[in-house]
Amino acid sequence: MTQTPEQELTDKVVASFDTAKDERFREVMQALVRHAHAFVRETRLTEDEWGAAVGFLTAAGRITTDTRQEFVLLSDVLGISMLTVAVNEPGLDESTESTVLGPFFVQDSPGIELGGNIAGGATGEPAWVDGRVTDTDGNPVPGARVEVWEADDDGMYDVQYDDAVLAGRAHLFTDAEGRYRFWGLTPTPYPIPDDGPVGRLLEHAGRSPMRAPHLHFMVTAPGFRRLITHIFVAGDTCLDADSVFGVKESLIRPFDRHEAGTPTPDSRRLEGRWTSTVFDIVLRKE
Amino acid sequence: MTQTPEQELTDKVVASFDTAKDERFREVMQALVRHAHAFVRETRLTEDEWGAAVGFLTAAGRITTDTRQEFVLLSDVLGISMLTVAVNEPGLDESTESTVLGPFFVQDSPGIELGGNIAGGATGEPAWVDGRVTDTDGNPVPGARVEVWEADDDGMYDVQYDDAVLAGRAHLFTDAEGRYRFWGLTPTPYPIPDDGPVGRLLEHAGRSPMRAPHLHFMVTAPGFRRLITHIFVAGDTCLDADSVFGVKESLIRPFDRHEAGTPTPDSRRLEGRWTSTVFDIVLRKE
Ligand SMILES: [Fe+2]
Ligand SMILES: [Fe+2]
Repeated sequence: MTQTPEQELTDKVVASFDTAKDERFREVMQALVRHAHAFVRETRLTEDEWGAAVGFLTAAGRITTDTRQEFVLLSDVLGISMLTVAVNEPGLDESTESTVLGPFFVQDSPGIELGGNIAGGATGEPAWVDGRVTDTDGNPVPGARVEVWEADDDGMYDVQYDDAVLAGRAHLFTDAEGRYRFWGLTPTPYPIPDDGPVGRLLEHAGRSPMRAPHLHFMVTAPGFRRLITHIFVAGDTCLDADSVFGVKESLIRPFDRHEAGTPTPDSRRLEGRWTSTVFDIVLRKE
Repeated sequence: MTQTPEQELTDKVVASFDTAKDERFREVMQALVRHAHAFVRETRLTEDEWGAAVGFLTAAGRITTDTRQEFVLLSDVLGISMLTVAVNEPGLDESTESTVLGPFFVQDSPGIELGGNIAGGATGEPAWVDGRVTDTDGNPVPGARVEVWEADDDGMYDVQYDDAVLAGRAHLFTDAEGRYRFWGLTPTPYPIPDDGPVGRLLEHAGRSPMRAPHLHFMVTAPGFRRLITHIFVAGDTCLDADSVFGVKESLIRPFDRHEAGTPTPDSRRLEGRWTSTVFDIVLRKE
């Protein structure tokens, strides 16, 4: 069989989107068709493999709920999420780099005061995090909303438990000088949920489901581009093998260790060890 | 931003599949990553568009059940199903061409005798279908299993009704000369199920959900390649705009019209009009 009837089919499917009124929708769908068809043609995909792909998507749909998003996980482990972040980066300037949103963001986190604790019952080693939010000229951004979320030291996010309690997440607002500070937990490595089709895919690929330890940030302020990012723990062995390809050099921060009883920045003496880090954030004007 | 960090990311994701033990799995996944990334890079996909894609797949998963397969519909309307058929066609010989399986095949159809009726209560104009199953040298294939299924004249397949009754589908076996014959229904145009995300996609694209009228066949015999195909009704206006791109010239058959009372091939006189067609099938040796 020559390539010709295959190319004819692709052309026909592409042309079927010519009638779309929305120009951007047409452009995206026609590109999707061309690239999907190129994949099938290049791999000479068998009918059994096609069936396996349909079965995979069906299983992913079945396991997906309001708190478990297998399609986001799939996009994450194929690097599609991170590539989407990359193509939307505003370009080389001083602003803080972005990384993946991940599947565990939720609306309506609890609000806390500056210096408050996001743990809300989540277990782990206390970590003091502070920093300053500025624009690309170094001017403070007061009143910026800093949203943070992370896993507990069992590697679980609050939404992965059955109790519907929000924990390990909160939002706070920067002060007049753009400063923020809170108590969180020292991030630990955790596997992305791997009891579903994406987990089986990783296993089949001989890939680890582990994520490099991190703390999620979403920072918003009127007039500025929304920043979705993480900070990663310097020195961790998972930094080079993050299962979702989220690590960027500029986002790695040392988490300094302090012995029990060492006075904290807010003048407490904790019974156990704790860590501290600084994360200054630069927002880009919209 | 230069292309370099984007290409680096793609290379890293491709390399993450190097550890896959199954060579074909590795090859297919690495091609998938390359083509999916090329799509995102070319379209400069926005984060909102990425979110819409995740939402689309989530909605497709939610509507999919044992009898409603939205992912197959998606593959169908993007021409991916038909392209998979094309890349697996055994090459230019005398054997009958394939087309899409579609989402309405079910295992365990009722068996009927030669000359029996597949309707089982499905409504429509009776259609007499007969033909001969041979190999590519013209030798008859006795005992071939001929599985047929089709929509009723409301454009609905049995599995789309709530009553769990199988209708408009059956299987039968060819006789010693490779011949088969049965009563079916004259195929009528029908829309693919369009009350879900795929229907909204077609609407947004300005595309019709209608399929060209057809009767599904699956023909199997020991030692032969399984044939999955349709016959299409000659002269129908939907032939050029089949929503799943399934029409092939060689599969179009005239359905001859006969007035009420005209003697049928099995010597009956029906009260209403009926049609007849001939479909000779050539199987390819495995
Ligand atoms: Fe995370
Ligand atoms: Fe059909």
